[in-house]
Amino acid sequence: MSAFPPESPSVTLQVPLPSPFRLQAGGELIGAQVAVETYGHLSPARDNAILLFTGLSASAHAASHPGDTSSGWWESMIGPGKALDTDRYFVISVNSLGSCFGSTGPASLNPATGQPYGGDFPELRVEDIARASQAAVDSFGIDQLAAAIGCSLGGMTVLAHAVCFPGRARAIASISGAMAANAAAIATRSLQREIVGSLLKAGAEPERVQQAMRWARKIGVLSYVGTELLEKRFGRDQTEPFSGHGSGTDFEVESWLEHLAQKFVRQFDPWAYWVISRAMDLFDFAAHGAAPEGDAVVHRHDATDAARAAAFLKLERALVIGVQEDRLFPVDQQRAIGAVLNASGITTDYVELASPYGHDAFLTEHTLFTPVLRSFLDELRVALPLAPSRFEAGLRR
Amino acid sequence: MSAFPPESPSVTLQVPLPSPFRLQAGGELIGAQVAVETYGHLSPARDNAILLFTGLSASAHAASHPGDTSSGWWESMIGPGKALDTDRYFVISVNSLGSCFGSTGPASLNPATGQPYGGDFPELRVEDIARASQAAVDSFGIDQLAAAIGCSLGGMTVLAHAVCFPGRARAIASISGAMAANAAAIATRSLQREIVGSLLKAGAEPERVQQAMRWARKIGVLSYVGTELLEKRFGRDQTEPFSGHGSGTDFEVESWLEHLAQKFVRQFDPWAYWVISRAMDLFDFAAHGAAPEGDAVVHRHDATDAARAAAFLKLERALVIGVQEDRLFPVDQQRAIGAVLNASGITTDYVELASPYGHDAFLTEHTLFTPVLRSFLDELRVALPLAPSRFEAGLRR
Repeated sequence: MSAFPPESPSVTLQVPLPSPFRLQAGGELIGAQVAVETYGHLSPARDNAILLFTGLSASAHAASHPGDTSSGWWESMIGPGKALDTDRYFVISVNSLGSCFGSTGPASLNPATGQPYGGDFPELRVEDIARASQAAVDSFGIDQLAAAIGCSLGGMTVLAHAVCFPGRARAIASISGAMAANAAAIATRSLQREIVGSLLKAGAEPERVQQAMRWARKIGVLSYVGTELLEKRFGRDQTEPFSGHGSGTDFEVESWLEHLAQKFVRQFDPWAYWVISRAMDLFDFAAHGAAPEGDAVVHRHDATDAARAAAFLKLERALVIGVQEDRLFPVDQQRAIGAVLNASGITTDYVELASPYGHDAFLTEHTLFTPVLRSFLDELRVALPLAPSRFEAGLRR
Repeated sequence: MSAFPPESPSVTLQVPLPSPFRLQAGGELIGAQVAVETYGHLSPARDNAILLFTGLSASAHAASHPGDTSSGWWESMIGPGKALDTDRYFVISVNSLGSCFGSTGPASLNPATGQPYGGDFPELRVEDIARASQAAVDSFGIDQLAAAIGCSLGGMTVLAHAVCFPGRARAIASISGAMAANAAAIATRSLQREIVGSLLKAGAEPERVQQAMRWARKIGVLSYVGTELLEKRFGRDQTEPFSGHGSGTDFEVESWLEHLAQKFVRQFDPWAYWVISRAMDLFDFAAHGAAPEGDAVVHRHDATDAARAAAFLKLERALVIGVQEDRLFPVDQQRAIGAVLNASGITTDYVELASPYGHDAFLTEHTLFTPVLRSFLDELRVALPLAPSRFEAGLRR
């Protein structure tokens, strides 16, 4: 493992997890790891770290850096002078446990068999993603994060982290997240999992699984994006004939969906998709406040449970951002997060943005998100990191 | 064929179409027919007929009658004293050409081969559905309909009928219809067709086609229903474990979707689904107003084209009903229909309803729809039909 704190401004690391790494639902992983990227410099007081949780399908590569100059998924938000200002903050981006970009997941080799886990990967929960990420934070010798920030699944993970590790982050920002998926989101994701999972479990040939993954991704994209945006961009425009995918039509919007789906299938492991999607549906922040005899997963927890869960949190500040056009994590869920945090005595900012990009807005609307996140982070006073050369000199003194 | 006008209050008929029946896209059908049900009595002046167009998946069985006492898809709206009052009106409900409930469609035998048409069924357009239905009207000896009414696809068909047969209906009511599908609706339906069509075209075994149909139906249901309704009805409630469908979870909302999907698969022919869904995406009312050299199907027609198409209509009155929560045929499309009709000089009522049922509201919210349709139909003065016994007596006199 590399020396910590890292000497290069941004690095890609594989952080080993405690082994066995016990999972919330009862399973365990032997010799597991998470892939991490960092941006900026950890301050001498180690008080300027931001832990970043991703959406379902993202890698740890949130921003370009010398070791990987390709654009990251939050390229416009992370860097010197950007919303997550790497002149001030040390950003730790983690590929979710269960994913397939360097972190242990279903595509990893199961040490018990020497074969990929596949369907044998133990049941994953959002809390496990939070705990594996916290292990990475521990490996940096950071006692307390300045903030934990997450989008979509990452917004759920932020809440899981806050309730699993009270006091380990001073502040949280939840962007288009949820305390628990609503029925429509569950219905959408469980259908995606059914399409992919029924073929995976039947041991279908790879082409059919890929076809199922393309369909699942298209369902996903249609749940993320705003309908007005589709209408403006594509309307009823026709593309060069490309049929053969079975629809019998050649509308531009179909071609765009196909492009996105093919890209996703090339990148994402089907079982990893299935496992993380399921974790999203099973997550329920309020379960952390439920009576211990209660079923912690699927039953409807009431506002009292959520308030009790929030009472465990030790946060100075919280920021909740919702997008009005988001149909997958709708604004009523965003308002509920803000209300619960605020009622528990945490100074909470609630910001509702309007964007035709809907649930995907955080990926594209950096001009909307930047001032909100910047002002939130400006109010967290942290020790400024030394300049790289002075920092390295300091280490060697 | 039965004698017309029918002597029983409500009947089920098979109406032969002119043969060959030429289709708008160039194909033709030999010996085709449409299945029709009627409710109420045709008045001596034959001026009290309402032609009813259905959504994608409905049969002609819109209401129960002595020959079929099961509930119809618009049971609460059709009957004595109901919105479509059969004491006053003679309602003609037609199973769409291309469907599978008695009308000629892909599941029908192709007289050229003696086998079901399947993928050889010629390209169908919404205009063909309108024209086949008008053939049924002609067979009753009705010169002019009091009104044509349709919901969803039926709303599109109402517009197609009005522009193909100017003056043959005095009035129209379009409920949750559209002048043309928007990009999101096209994306949703083309994905459903891709899932079903890719298997149909590959000649996949029936079990896989049925699985694909279930998935397509679930995508459809999720596009019809309001998300708040799902949340209220199901939330995160768990059902008896039923997994094995591959999602890995047992939420109540999944079980409900599965029930609807299985019911659909038992009833609906896959190729019929594919053919009619495609017709919906290809329909474009404005194409009827486009310059003849223009592509009449897929290019984006402007408001001028729509206005030119509307100028062909000969209607006394129009009613346009939209539902605010409808995501598949959203209210901006409803307003556009109302605006185009109104601008063309037709007295047009526009009514926007609020219902958590979204696109499906017309099937369930009869207390909302009844007063609107009743008041619309009240203003169409028609000759009242004789009472049944007097009517039959009159025929025999």
